[in-house]
Amino acid sequence: MARAMNFNAGPAALPLEALERAQRELIDFAGTGMSIIEHSHRGKAYEAVHNEAITLLRELLDIKDTHHVLFLQGGASQQFAMIPMNLLKPGQSADYIVTGAWGKKAIQEAKTVGTVRSASAGDPEAKPARVPKQSELDLDANAAYVHLTSNETIGGSQWHEFPSTGKAPLVADMSSDILSRPIDVSKFGLIYAGAQKNIGPSGVTLVIVRKDLVETGRTDIPKIFRYATHAAENSLYNTPATFAVYLVRNVLDVLKKNGGLAAIDKQNRAKAKALYDAIDARPDFYRCPVEQGARSLMNVVFNLPTPELEAEFVTATQKLGMVGLKGHRSVGGIRASIYNAVLPEWVGALAQFMNDFHKGS
Amino acid sequence: MARAMNFNAGPAALPLEALERAQRELIDFAGTGMSIIEHSHRGKAYEAVHNEAITLLRELLDIKDTHHVLFLQGGASQQFAMIPMNLLKPGQSADYIVTGAWGKKAIQEAKTVGTVRSASAGDPEAKPARVPKQSELDLDANAAYVHLTSNETIGGSQWHEFPSTGKAPLVADMSSDILSRPIDVSKFGLIYAGAQKNIGPSGVTLVIVRKDLVETGRTDIPKIFRYATHAAENSLYNTPATFAVYLVRNVLDVLKKNGGLAAIDKQNRAKAKALYDAIDARPDFYRCPVEQGARSLMNVVFNLPTPELEAEFVTATQKLGMVGLKGHRSVGGIRASIYNAVLPEWVGALAQFMNDFHKGS
Repeated sequence: MARAMNFNAGPAALPLEALERAQRELIDFAGTGMSIIEHSHRGKAYEAVHNEAITLLRELLDIKDTHHVLFLQGGASQQFAMIPMNLLKPGQSADYIVTGAWGKKAIQEAKTVGTVRSASAGDPEAKPARVPKQSELDLDANAAYVHLTSNETIGGSQWHEFPSTGKAPLVADMSSDILSRPIDVSKFGLIYAGAQKNIGPSGVTLVIVRKDLVETGRTDIPKIFRYATHAAENSLYNTPATFAVYLVRNVLDVLKKNGGLAAIDKQNRAKAKALYDAIDARPDFYRCPVEQGARSLMNVVFNLPTPELEAEFVTATQKLGMVGLKGHRSVGGIRASIYNAVLPEWVGALAQFMNDFHKGS
Repeated sequence: MARAMNFNAGPAALPLEALERAQRELIDFAGTGMSIIEHSHRGKAYEAVHNEAITLLRELLDIKDTHHVLFLQGGASQQFAMIPMNLLKPGQSADYIVTGAWGKKAIQEAKTVGTVRSASAGDPEAKPARVPKQSELDLDANAAYVHLTSNETIGGSQWHEFPSTGKAPLVADMSSDILSRPIDVSKFGLIYAGAQKNIGPSGVTLVIVRKDLVETGRTDIPKIFRYATHAAENSLYNTPATFAVYLVRNVLDVLKKNGGLAAIDKQNRAKAKALYDAIDARPDFYRCPVEQGARSLMNVVFNLPTPELEAEFVTATQKLGMVGLKGHRSVGGIRASIYNAVLPEWVGALAQFMNDFHKGS
């Protein structure tokens, strides 16, 4: 069958080249007579892959020696707990800027660990979705950290510039937009991301964390949940998700070959523009529930005049070989997730279809 | 290259048939035009795989409706923390029967969470390795649970009959021998296992847990670490390690086709016997540091007269295409891990080599 036009929100499309390499090598990795899955995580073959993935991340994101690069497990959802467990000390409070459903989950989980406060007013899931301006933030100068979600996959909003947080380290859930654009890692205390959007398969979590935060992290929590444990062992304290890290390596290698973050950023902007233009050209028919300045370049969400038309739209796209365009079950509507590996021609086909569907309705 | 004779301790050999199926399907899963890695964890294609893996586990291990079957992340090392976090309540104590390095790690991590006591005397890493008799145990009748490690991969000891623990639920780390033999799951409160020995790739953790323990588990811990969270959502609360679960499905399918646990148990016993016979036939040269009744059927550890001879032995096996025979760095010696997917002919070749090497030395 021809390759599906995959607009899944995550797990999502991966570069075909990265998958084809995995397929070729799956039974016999580098002439070793074994799959990479069967190699010891303490052996030379796997360790080279593991370190290459870390090196590629450092290159692509320009991560300095001030930060550790860790491969953990449990996804962003586990980081929701691990961040306050490590960084929020007794007597301290942490600030959360909540701009959607994922930020809400993050603050709720943090509340099971310690004292947190919301640094922005209003219902974060109200429409239109937006991100607050610096002047709207109510930041605690003594906060242990300030947490935000750089891209909300459900609501479809994204931070295009990050706020200043003074001395408080900025912590960002970048699960759905990491590696989609250049960022200044030095401005962040901690960046985390489940891999299953732009990095690789589900089952591995990237954590980029400032070394001083690791050194001063809490030690009265289980060893497995301390960043210090994993940092000291180059993420080999316990067995990592070896195949997942291997596939991350393949994905990063393709990204680098194709020009890195500057090139993919340009492509991502063009892809998003094609869809937002299709929406804005027919304001009587398509409606984006996100403020102009906060529209996500990764998850383009929009509504049609009725839920019935939305269902018809989704069915029609499926017949064209498009997958994953139904909005999240909690909000309905349409959502096109257009991560790095979603090809411009798929996005072009969707924009064209949006035009045709509008005319035909 | 010919397939390596893989004696790795884990990640370890997997059935070639399971890997070949993964290779065939890697780019286009079931005619969907997408890799299983690219499918949504909430879509029909992945959910069918996920549920098939659970059904196969229930069939193979005869797991009744009294127990949940969960796919989590973080390996056994994360369970070392999650078990006391969930099951050990304030004012309670848990018993640990420590028979080696892994049991030691488990009790050390549990101490970061609550009150635990050792239910067996002596240094668990003393030689010869052994497992205590029922009469040697000092069990607390009111323990929240009793923990043991069914097979110690480093020391090479294994429980061949499990102790009675009265009302206290028995909790077992079966990372390295689950699915290698029939067990009576109904006798256990909780069984857990990192997948990377007999189940599949690293990155997914199997937890089989009695429903009443889940229902009465602690709720004052982060939601992501509660078994109740994952049980309520069929392990789809957050994104599971989808490819890892898929590969587990493939491995279980092969195991079932080949006759299930009774058949693999017979094969595993024959494999272990071949190696222990080779050791016992030359007691002046090979020495197994494990008591006869506690010898592992999964990890056969032995020593040669000198470390120099051991190094020579390992080098010679490598030239024959054997991998992973060097003992764990903490204890030295030789270790042959002979999990389900290690072929009888590889074991036969090793036994033959042991004979030849003895003659030649």
